[in-house]
Amino acid sequence: MEKGASMSRSTINTSLVRTMLVQFLREEVHKVGFSKGIVGVSGGVDSSLVAYLTAEALGPQNVIAVNLPYRLSHPESHAHAKAVAEQLRVNFQVIELTPMIDAYFERFPDADEIRRGNKLSRERMSILYDMSAAYSGLVIGTSNKTELLLGYGTLYGDMASAINPIGDLYKTQIWQLAEAVGVPRMIIEKAPSADLWVGQTDEAELGYSYTQIDQLLYHMIDLRLTEEELFHVGFDLTFIRAIRARVQKSHFKRRLPVIAKISDRTIDRDFRYARDWGY
Amino acid sequence: MEKGASMSRSTINTSLVRTMLVQFLREEVHKVGFSKGIVGVSGGVDSSLVAYLTAEALGPQNVIAVNLPYRLSHPESHAHAKAVAEQLRVNFQVIELTPMIDAYFERFPDADEIRRGNKLSRERMSILYDMSAAYSGLVIGTSNKTELLLGYGTLYGDMASAINPIGDLYKTQIWQLAEAVGVPRMIIEKAPSADLWVGQTDEAELGYSYTQIDQLLYHMIDLRLTEEELFHVGFDLTFIRAIRARVQKSHFKRRLPVIAKISDRTIDRDFRYARDWGY
Repeated sequence: MEKGASMSRSTINTSLVRTMLVQFLREEVHKVGFSKGIVGVSGGVDSSLVAYLTAEALGPQNVIAVNLPYRLSHPESHAHAKAVAEQLRVNFQVIELTPMIDAYFERFPDADEIRRGNKLSRERMSILYDMSAAYSGLVIGTSNKTELLLGYGTLYGDMASAINPIGDLYKTQIWQLAEAVGVPRMIIEKAPSADLWVGQTDEAELGYSYTQIDQLLYHMIDLRLTEEELFHVGFDLTFIRAIRARVQKSHFKRRLPVIAKISDRTIDRDFRYARDWGY
Repeated sequence: MEKGASMSRSTINTSLVRTMLVQFLREEVHKVGFSKGIVGVSGGVDSSLVAYLTAEALGPQNVIAVNLPYRLSHPESHAHAKAVAEQLRVNFQVIELTPMIDAYFERFPDADEIRRGNKLSRERMSILYDMSAAYSGLVIGTSNKTELLLGYGTLYGDMASAINPIGDLYKTQIWQLAEAVGVPRMIIEKAPSADLWVGQTDEAELGYSYTQIDQLLYHMIDLRLTEEELFHVGFDLTFIRAIRARVQKSHFKRRLPVIAKISDRTIDRDFRYARDWGY
């Protein structure tokens, strides 16, 4: 992107954003009568940042950090998750997914990596919600804006939560904020990976770097530039079209199931209040 | 409800509704480039009705009916699911949940029935979505309007799907339509049960009959009557308040996770298109 110098910036005021997100977490958890938060900690930067923010908002004694390794997970992932929990002095639970996942795929030995990765992700959601019941805590989401917009996540898996403090932050902004709140550098600097299979990295799978993608998404979604305008700002046409197609094709992951309308008052159509209706 | 005779009716025109729902299923599946539907068949009336409608909409060769029994499931449930699949001549898959569920609860032997029931429900969702990937089919929802409004279902479990043909039909309307499309009488007439633990029945758990609840919900939600008006129509005040509290307390299950707003364009706030945007 040679014309990059003329591009708008998507950097954030980390101290302001930190205050806003801590306040958000405190309010959203307390107003529905809860005091605890459940955070699935993978050892990656997104969930580490969420653990830091949640500990600041609710107090470390009210955070349950749950690490859910599989036998093919990178050992470093668990080590980093543990380091975060120790630094924050939060309750740390480790639950191995291998018995449940392997029991299932014994029946489908030919299942590909995508099916296996999605099953892992949904098993993690299912366990985080079980911990939610066990500890009376809300499941705090850890999906960032980049992956939500690209649909680079599992529906009803890692995309599922009660409330999400980082869903409006691009990955590059996550890095900024993670540094500001004190997430260990080894976690911020490693190559982002869903760690669903050996050798997987986000940027290899997506085909572009997060810096490239975030710049484009910021101009496309936040600033609402047209294809022509994006091209004039300096983005490659193939790149623009590939990313736009991903955003559109994955839109179903950002919506509720569609209910066939029969009556005068249908859920999510004419019957729709804010999530905290009644509190 | 002695004044019941003066109540409005919530009966449906079954032939019109059947046509609408079959059309809905056909359009929603085809327009996103799919031809197949995945239906989790429990042997209950809701999922049986959905299997009948989906077979009519897509053709029996395009329906994968998946039965997901657990060792504590009532044997009749599996038998009824099988009877439906055989009558419709659809592809029938049976996947035992016992190995995965028991592997998990070996670690938490003291978990109560609610935790176990929710884990079962989410395991079923996870497997239906794996079948969705294996067969390239959309997961067709089977939650009815009564249970969606009462929150009588598992978030990211049985409440999760791609599209839901029956989410705007009350349980009593489900019975009407099931009879019209030919669901076996043994399925329509048995006591509704989530069958998550031995002896569970919906009406015992809810504390009221579906006939009572549906009449109240219809007047409360569809006709938008106030508490005073509902009382004058003939509903008991305790009953009105209990049901209204359930509807409100479960509202979070009918909404997407709340994302903390940071930018000018936030997912599900300023960035929100219909589910079929881009098609």
